Amino acid sequence: MNFFSSNFKLGILGGGQLGKMILYNTRKFDIYTCVLDPSNEAPSKIACNEFYQGNLMDYDTVVAFGRKVNTLTIEIENVNVDALETLEKEGVTVYPSSKTLRTIQNKAKQKLFYIDNNIPTAEFSRFAYTSEIREALNNGGLELPFVWKSAQFGYDGNGVKVIRQLNDLEGLPNVECITEKMIPFKNELAVIVARNADGEVKTFPVVEMEFHPEANQVEYVICPARIDETVAKKAQEVALQTSKAFNHVGLLAVEMFQTQDDHILVNEVAPRPHNSGHQTIEASYTSQFEQHLRAILNLPLGKTDSKVGGIMVNLVGAENYTGDVVYENIESIMKMDGVTPHIYGKKQTRPFRKMGHVTIVDKDINTARQIAEQVKNTIKVISK
Amino acid sequence: MNFFSSNFKLGILGGGQLGKMILYNTRKFDIYTCVLDPSNEAPSKIACNEFYQGNLMDYDTVVAFGRKVNTLTIEIENVNVDALETLEKEGVTVYPSSKTLRTIQNKAKQKLFYIDNNIPTAEFSRFAYTSEIREALNNGGLELPFVWKSAQFGYDGNGVKVIRQLNDLEGLPNVECITEKMIPFKNELAVIVARNADGEVKTFPVVEMEFHPEANQVEYVICPARIDETVAKKAQEVALQTSKAFNHVGLLAVEMFQTQDDHILVNEVAPRPHNSGHQTIEASYTSQFEQHLRAILNLPLGKTDSKVGGIMVNLVGAENYTGDVVYENIESIMKMDGVTPHIYGKKQTRPFRKMGHVTIVDKDINTARQIAEQVKNTIKVISK
Repeated sequence: MNFFSSNFKLGILGGGQLGKMILYNTRKFDIYTCVLDPSNEAPSKIACNEFYQGNLMDYDTVVAFGRKVNTLTIEIENVNVDALETLEKEGVTVYPSSKTLRTIQNKAKQKLFYIDNNIPTAEFSRFAYTSEIREALNNGGLELPFVWKSAQFGYDGNGVKVIRQLNDLEGLPNVECITEKMIPFKNELAVIVARNADGEVKTFPVVEMEFHPEANQVEYVICPARIDETVAKKAQEVALQTSKAFNHVGLLAVEMFQTQDDHILVNEVAPRPHNSGHQTIEASYTSQFEQHLRAILNLPLGKTDSKVGGIMVNLVGAENYTGDVVYENIESIMKMDGVTPHIYGKKQTRPFRKMGHVTIVDKDINTARQIAEQVKNTIKVISK
Repeated sequence: MNFFSSNFKLGILGGGQLGKMILYNTRKFDIYTCVLDPSNEAPSKIACNEFYQGNLMDYDTVVAFGRKVNTLTIEIENVNVDALETLEKEGVTVYPSSKTLRTIQNKAKQKLFYIDNNIPTAEFSRFAYTSEIREALNNGGLELPFVWKSAQFGYDGNGVKVIRQLNDLEGLPNVECITEKMIPFKNELAVIVARNADGEVKTFPVVEMEFHPEANQVEYVICPARIDETVAKKAQEVALQTSKAFNHVGLLAVEMFQTQDDHILVNEVAPRPHNSGHQTIEASYTSQFEQHLRAILNLPLGKTDSKVGGIMVNLVGAENYTGDVVYENIESIMKMDGVTPHIYGKKQTRPFRKMGHVTIVDKDINTARQIAEQVKNTIKVISK
């Protein structure tokens, strides 16, 4: 198959900011793309060759879309997996596979998968309904505090809650869920692993993530992580072990905890380009978006070393602002050395909504970190 | 003016491969774009917000298009300059200005401009018609060999011919032209200068160009140029002098000769992103395309240092192949470290047609140069 011709069609489920960044690379390689997204104003609508509006969770919609393309990938996990399975049977190449996605979509299944494959992860319990948790607490089968996670459709800032006292359970949806032991970690780390159909595997360097304490969203991603070489090596090994267990094709972003005694525990994974890899656009020889494409098209994987140190700052809507977005002081941050804003193009802001990200690169990661702090203190995502 | 909002519209005259690479950056900044191009299959057609098909040399077409936008720029010089002048009078911001473009569009005017501004350039003569050249040769006012250049609408590989003997004049169009003294140069160099409306100026490092002997097209662009620091400094100074004389806004790519005695002579300029700056996408802190946008939108200019050494190889159609394009061995070059192909998306190849480019980056420029040679010897642009 020659991908560099208009006979080949790549389908992408989801046309958000990740899809938009994938599309820069399909355009660079002149690969024909079709995108399906529920919103008629999806950021990917321009820059793909064919755009379709439709529900990613609807079986018929996804099957009909998938039949138009040769290879199908995703930019979001919440898609109809039965449809992917049908398409696979019909001969469409689907990466990540329906099997990989089925395991990842459900956090309970994901955790059981780690246990089955001897992948280190935080202790957890599984509940068919949130309402069962109180009983487990009464029985002594569960202890406060813990992290509650909805089994399905969870993502950063949603579907996850730290439960410190009984009251915290109130208002949670009564759905399938897991409870996880709180990990008093030193660092949150991530490694993005790429694997192509031929089995070639490459990892990006270990990154360190700093979370916003309230919004539970990544605030800084720092590459390389400022950790000991031995810990970095261990994180790489655990990420590779996880990747091997999934036998995925495409990217697998593996989020991990570095515990107080320097053990590595897998938190969760995403089988696609990930927020923890945005700095690769400016910092790496190969961006995560290009690498995802190389992997799913079974092309040789690109070099994953860094050219320079890179830091990513998420641009999220400021508290107390809702409405037409304004990027206050964006010109000021563009005066700073090595600073690149990425604006996703969402017209409306609201508190903690991801509106874009800013990459800061410098040969010295500590200089980059200082500039990142300045960036964070200068730009503000507000409304008119 | 807040560019980061949908009220602002940027117009681009020309929707070719340069426009396509500008559009990645408008999308990154979420800037609304309108593109005018004669071809309904222009590479920029997808990824801009509004696409218009029309003749860039037609006054009415360009005026009508320009009235839709707030700021107008170009990706090609051959546009109707009277239309730009009208638009400027009507209040549209046009960068480069009609004045800059008028001087650059005509090579005779461009050369006179260098003389007027004490910018070093090769000796030349101006002719209203090519047919006048024979008389000048007979009179002794001109000596063989020389370089013939059409005054208007010339570009690499077209409108330029080395005249070694009288016969070589045959078949040339009988148009306004210049003849230039042949410069036995050591190197062809280029510097891209960016200038915004506030007068902020930044230069990219000096690059070295190797031309294909037959096609008169750039074969390698090497950044940084492998020249003495004093020569590099002189080239930077001449480029800045040229930029200052034009008082342009946006990019100015200044192509220069380094003579045998290490003088710098300006060859020609382009007031836009340029082939000699493609490697900035992968090698520089700020790409030339982002820098052009920053300049014309009067934003702070980005850092122009290189992260790593960069080499650009043009992908041109192989001799003896015309028809539906095939990129033979593209997968082999993608196995090499730090290699990124850019495929422009033209469906038909013909000998020496620019079909794309490949960037090779490495911390060591000599390693990059070796890989570039491998790339050039491996990939072949042929037809089915």
